[in-house]
Amino acid sequence: MFYFLSYLQDSFGPARLFEYLTFRAGGAGFTAFLIVLLLGSFTAKKLRACNAQAINRYAGLLDADKLDKEKEKTPSMGGILIIGAVIISALLWSNLTNVIPLILIISTVEFTLIGFWDDYKKVYQRNRDGLSETMKWITTSVVALSVVAALIMIPATKPLMQEIMVPFMKEPLHIGWWSIFISIVAILGCTHAVNLTDGKDGLASGCMIFAMSSMSIFAYLTGNRIWADYLNLPLISGVGETLVFGSAVVGACVGFLWHNCHPASMFMGDTGSLPLGGALSVIAVILRQELLLILVGGVFVLEAGSVIFQKFTFKLWRKRFFRCTPFHHHFDKSWGGSWSENQIVVRFWIIAGICALLALATLKLR
Amino acid sequence: MFYFLSYLQDSFGPARLFEYLTFRAGGAGFTAFLIVLLLGSFTAKKLRACNAQAINRYAGLLDADKLDKEKEKTPSMGGILIIGAVIISALLWSNLTNVIPLILIISTVEFTLIGFWDDYKKVYQRNRDGLSETMKWITTSVVALSVVAALIMIPATKPLMQEIMVPFMKEPLHIGWWSIFISIVAILGCTHAVNLTDGKDGLASGCMIFAMSSMSIFAYLTGNRIWADYLNLPLISGVGETLVFGSAVVGACVGFLWHNCHPASMFMGDTGSLPLGGALSVIAVILRQELLLILVGGVFVLEAGSVIFQKFTFKLWRKRFFRCTPFHHHFDKSWGGSWSENQIVVRFWIIAGICALLALATLKLR
Repeated sequence: MFYFLSYLQDSFGPARLFEYLTFRAGGAGFTAFLIVLLLGSFTAKKLRACNAQAINRYAGLLDADKLDKEKEKTPSMGGILIIGAVIISALLWSNLTNVIPLILIISTVEFTLIGFWDDYKKVYQRNRDGLSETMKWITTSVVALSVVAALIMIPATKPLMQEIMVPFMKEPLHIGWWSIFISIVAILGCTHAVNLTDGKDGLASGCMIFAMSSMSIFAYLTGNRIWADYLNLPLISGVGETLVFGSAVVGACVGFLWHNCHPASMFMGDTGSLPLGGALSVIAVILRQELLLILVGGVFVLEAGSVIFQKFTFKLWRKRFFRCTPFHHHFDKSWGGSWSENQIVVRFWIIAGICALLALATLKLR
Repeated sequence: MFYFLSYLQDSFGPARLFEYLTFRAGGAGFTAFLIVLLLGSFTAKKLRACNAQAINRYAGLLDADKLDKEKEKTPSMGGILIIGAVIISALLWSNLTNVIPLILIISTVEFTLIGFWDDYKKVYQRNRDGLSETMKWITTSVVALSVVAALIMIPATKPLMQEIMVPFMKEPLHIGWWSIFISIVAILGCTHAVNLTDGKDGLASGCMIFAMSSMSIFAYLTGNRIWADYLNLPLISGVGETLVFGSAVVGACVGFLWHNCHPASMFMGDTGSLPLGGALSVIAVILRQELLLILVGGVFVLEAGSVIFQKFTFKLWRKRFFRCTPFHHHFDKSWGGSWSENQIVVRFWIIAGICALLALATLKLR
């Protein structure tokens, strides 16, 4: 569509709007939103018919055997709809002569396939744990490595790949090829963290809206000459195009939230959470903002951190610090907390929103 | 605090940050948020102790007698906390040599007093209808008139008071003193519309977050020479200061949402909804963006519109177009709809967010 309309612009005036990144981003967000909104009920019905019921998703975790019993009837794999809408919308509205959106689209598809494989095992093969932990880590690592390898080869991103941006500092820090290690940790950490967060109706999709909005704005500013200059960001030309992809993700998540809010008509499953976490972290890696990602995805970090911390303290002292992990269960009434499901979700959204705003504030506080 | 720190800035470097409107806006938002967050449980307890229970709020309306029975035990008047936090935060962070924040603060206090009077009658005097409709319209009209009179006298706003901004048009439209009529209709409509929207846990506070964020950004851009020039807005000098007040409102609403999300520990009551609607519309009047207010506060317009439409069609044809008004009840399970309370609230938030974004998009689409 981008090409088509750029050809048109000589004869048809309004097609000029397509030159504006922000206009295309708006279009991408709206397209993805509408696709998910309109196809949501249909998809939920189809998934339910395919018997795609979610099996207790925390079965593999330390202390969550009795959770989510009442949710076993809600179909999973709704992520297919989210990612389908994102890809269609990104293909329609992106400038695909730019290689950065291509990397985002390809890596997202790869993560979706891993997630789908996992969900498929859980649902159809009735394998409670899905893909084995080892297999999950190996496959996601391969994708992460290939993304980093691609970024090292691309002229636009290559010069900065040995640097890392440090919040509150004006200059990027040179860290040599340690950056590869950090990038891969960021991608793996983020995909698995979003995966863990996806345990309450609307929790992961809602938090992703805030995190991705914030990260996309960063990408836009980093890719815009005037803004990058004003804010002392190292200009990465062409990276602004990420805004279109990010906006499609935000739109799709908003649309999904419509169907996913309590009581959810479907869950995204690993099919959705792996690629969403993947997309967020790949953008962070492109921008060299892996450290900022900790703040942007604050809720995801909290959730993953709580699981690691719990495992650690339990192994060391046989004591559980949280009532149950991931973190959101700690407040859950069924675990002795005092918050209802809805209160947990809305309050975590508020925290996610504040994290996203604080991340944007670091732009000026340098 | 603004004065104190502007004196300081010669000797203490970081105090220079206070010159930045955006920094003060962030501070105001965060202060208001923290006040409401931390004092929320205490306030809810005190209000419950004072026996400030909400009596069926739609008692006066056409068809809502059987609603909200289970909610009668939740205390109302939580608006005291919201507005208290807004006023404290605005006094701390605003530049009070500028008369525009003063108008906002004073009119907000006046609307709060009217709302409090109404709630007080409902709660303490066990008067089901609270303040009579006539009395409510008269008192709010007086406040609206005084605001418009003040704006006509202030040098910064006076030149534009006979104009009105039309979305998608570059130049303001000259409409003479009809503008007074439009301004008053906007203020009265908005206060009563927010009041009607306040009928589900978190509905009004959540929608207000989006609407006020959007309107505050408009105010900032209108008051900033570079942005106003770039976006073809008529510059109103000093109006950017509204961002500080608006940010305090947004922060307070986010904090309130923490306690107000389902199951709510308190309601804002008229004490909160009247001044929140008042603040939103007074900012729109200052910016001459009354028409845009229809889009910014889309959900509020829908809610008020549904009530008027229902009354109208019922009188005319003895038929009810909606199952129950205000609009959010139409989808309610207890009225034959198919949405749960939480789904209604989250979906209305999504609509409010989209309205707020569309309103911002009109800035560039001209």
